[in-house]
Amino acid sequence: MKFAAVDVIAKKRDGHELTEEEINWTIDAYTKGEVVDEQMSALAMAIFLKGMNREEIKAWTAAMLASGKRLDFSSLSKPTADKHSTGGVGDKITLPLGPLVAAFGVAVPQLSGRGLGHTGGTLDKLEAIPGWRANLSNDEIFQLLDHGPGAVVCAAGADLAPADRKLYALRDTTATVATIPLIASSIMSKKIAEGTAALVLDVKVGSGAFMKEESQAKELAQTMVDLGADFGVKTTALLTDMNTPLGLTVGNALEVRESLEVLAGGGPADVVDLTVRLAEEMIQAAGKDASGVRAALQDGRAMDKWREMILAQGGEVDAPLPVARHTEQVQASESGTIVSMDALQVGLAAWRLGAGRERQSDSVQAGAGVEIHAKPGEQITAGSPLFTLHTDTPEKFEAALAELSAAVKISAGPVEGGIVAAGTELGRVSNH
Amino acid sequence: MKFAAVDVIAKKRDGHELTEEEINWTIDAYTKGEVVDEQMSALAMAIFLKGMNREEIKAWTAAMLASGKRLDFSSLSKPTADKHSTGGVGDKITLPLGPLVAAFGVAVPQLSGRGLGHTGGTLDKLEAIPGWRANLSNDEIFQLLDHGPGAVVCAAGADLAPADRKLYALRDTTATVATIPLIASSIMSKKIAEGTAALVLDVKVGSGAFMKEESQAKELAQTMVDLGADFGVKTTALLTDMNTPLGLTVGNALEVRESLEVLAGGGPADVVDLTVRLAEEMIQAAGKDASGVRAALQDGRAMDKWREMILAQGGEVDAPLPVARHTEQVQASESGTIVSMDALQVGLAAWRLGAGRERQSDSVQAGAGVEIHAKPGEQITAGSPLFTLHTDTPEKFEAALAELSAAVKISAGPVEGGIVAAGTELGRVSNH
Repeated sequence: MKFAAVDVIAKKRDGHELTEEEINWTIDAYTKGEVVDEQMSALAMAIFLKGMNREEIKAWTAAMLASGKRLDFSSLSKPTADKHSTGGVGDKITLPLGPLVAAFGVAVPQLSGRGLGHTGGTLDKLEAIPGWRANLSNDEIFQLLDHGPGAVVCAAGADLAPADRKLYALRDTTATVATIPLIASSIMSKKIAEGTAALVLDVKVGSGAFMKEESQAKELAQTMVDLGADFGVKTTALLTDMNTPLGLTVGNALEVRESLEVLAGGGPADVVDLTVRLAEEMIQAAGKDASGVRAALQDGRAMDKWREMILAQGGEVDAPLPVARHTEQVQASESGTIVSMDALQVGLAAWRLGAGRERQSDSVQAGAGVEIHAKPGEQITAGSPLFTLHTDTPEKFEAALAELSAAVKISAGPVEGGIVAAGTELGRVSNH
Repeated sequence: MKFAAVDVIAKKRDGHELTEEEINWTIDAYTKGEVVDEQMSALAMAIFLKGMNREEIKAWTAAMLASGKRLDFSSLSKPTADKHSTGGVGDKITLPLGPLVAAFGVAVPQLSGRGLGHTGGTLDKLEAIPGWRANLSNDEIFQLLDHGPGAVVCAAGADLAPADRKLYALRDTTATVATIPLIASSIMSKKIAEGTAALVLDVKVGSGAFMKEESQAKELAQTMVDLGADFGVKTTALLTDMNTPLGLTVGNALEVRESLEVLAGGGPADVVDLTVRLAEEMIQAAGKDASGVRAALQDGRAMDKWREMILAQGGEVDAPLPVARHTEQVQASESGTIVSMDALQVGLAAWRLGAGRERQSDSVQAGAGVEIHAKPGEQITAGSPLFTLHTDTPEKFEAALAELSAAVKISAGPVEGGIVAAGTELGRVSNH
């Protein structure tokens, strides 16, 4: 079947439903370079503004899957479960979560990405550990899951959903990222190609997330859970709050440090609680007994798995973490209760300091980021520390300070309506 | 002022108004290649679906003008007037119109384009005349207008509104052509850059035009007339019917032949009437007396100017016109009154036969096209000729016949509501 790209674009532009044949042809031709970038970006904008229905999203996802290979973990001696977050600020959950779940006999094949914009990437965080490498062969992944630590975090191979890889880079520069059909099909095509049998999605809602509104986040969650059902993956989505940064650190090495505190039985309550909650969902979805998850963070079982996992991928597990060359402290300008701390603005400040990248080809500073000294709900006095900024490039302080200038609201009086902690569960959707 | 393309795209995507600074930066950066094609096509789709207001369209047009040079004919000894048609089927009006208006002491600098898709291009038509050349230097244009025939038809230089040239090619492959802000700014930036003092626009309405609905066409006309006022060009737009092909020929040499009939005082009434109507508007806008326009077609004055104009651009004015190697006749399948003849389908048939091009780089067949033997309102008997198809590539007959299969409606009974002839004036908008 052969179509003309301009006809497919015009059809979606005019609000009509694309057929499975049209979608297959478009994705295949785009992968081959016959549909060119300027045509795909026009189509992506038309999809952004006109939407896709359930059948179109399913066909789009199937076409992305068909553009590459699929891994199959059914030969492993253990069940598999994976987690994906739609991206937040200070979201280091994957780091303690993978080893924690592996401690319960579940294989965790985390094929992750690098960060872009104000949301950090798991690979960037782990690469702050000296020697740790993200690139593993498929044989290495199977070996580490079956006979090694049972958890791996690595870069997704270029042969998994290559159409998604190409489209994702294009969407990023053409303002066509934040649309449910393309977000859902992008995430699910990668995760289905990765071959996990069970998947837990952490769908972030709030200022620091792609989805600012709970209703949008719910729709995204439902769309992904439905795609999981279509392609035989047990999928559960939790909606969690991302108006406030998770934990007390934003930035690569800073977040590894905080993850180590969690694995040592400490760490901020919001990070611990969300890690435990997601771990329970993954372990249950994999058919294992999830009792004692919190205890496994406190008794060293998860930390043992972490050390195994980092060592297995070349990481110097006891080496000191990188530290930025320059720091600057931001103090509270008034006294009172912290009412809110805007996740987006804190994320942008960390990005300005060098923790994130502007283009796919940029590198990140391992030590850069924002340390948070007080969170919403806490009392603070004028002049006491709110943030410490870390960077190797002190000329960036000014831009970071500008991002933070209105990030924190402090109230002298009582806080109305209470405080919602980062990571608070706002809803749950599941297909099993 | 520096912006990020992705922010400009997102702003329009979300339905907000772009500032003059944002538009200037975008067009300039696109001309330089800093805003890339896939970003511009996403923006064009956002403009298609979200629109631009009056101020944005003015700024967009000004930015396109600023991307190149502008001609200035104020040093000529005569006033200037030009005509632009939004594109139709069988629209050869420019050919008799230029010499006719020049016969009244008005300089006509027609900087024209080549055809794309089902609408023909004036340059393609004139290039059917052996020896005729479309490329003139600016000095040659001035010389021919002031001391030569007074009318030139030539290719617009690459230095006039180069951003429009680049954007037009992009819009064509990304389904972002048929949107009023981009059509209006494209036409007017070229015509303003061309330097004409007065401009008459023939805004086509109907199946063979970009604007299918009269309300859309009216909005396009008003937008262009307003842009004329903004940039000091006396502009009048006529809305004319394009549900039926103009005249009895569609195709390059076929249309030259029909134009010669009009210049010799004959030719189809619809072509003659529209030529006279547009000539009157142009001559009046240039401040000259327009009485006796129809007579100038009949007494040889316009034909003399035509011969001068063709000769001045190298054309062998008495040489035989190219003829296609193969013809095929289409006959009426029933008897009755012709109720309608779909301009789009006839245009597509001519295009299939080789009269038009699919890509900018294609060449056209000079002799190819469709000859029409009976028009709406006429009685016809089953078996009598409706069309003669002309082509050098007879394997194209089948595709052309398919386009024509439903092009003509014949009614045995009386025709309700009467017949609207091609080129009938449906409205007029003017800024002077």
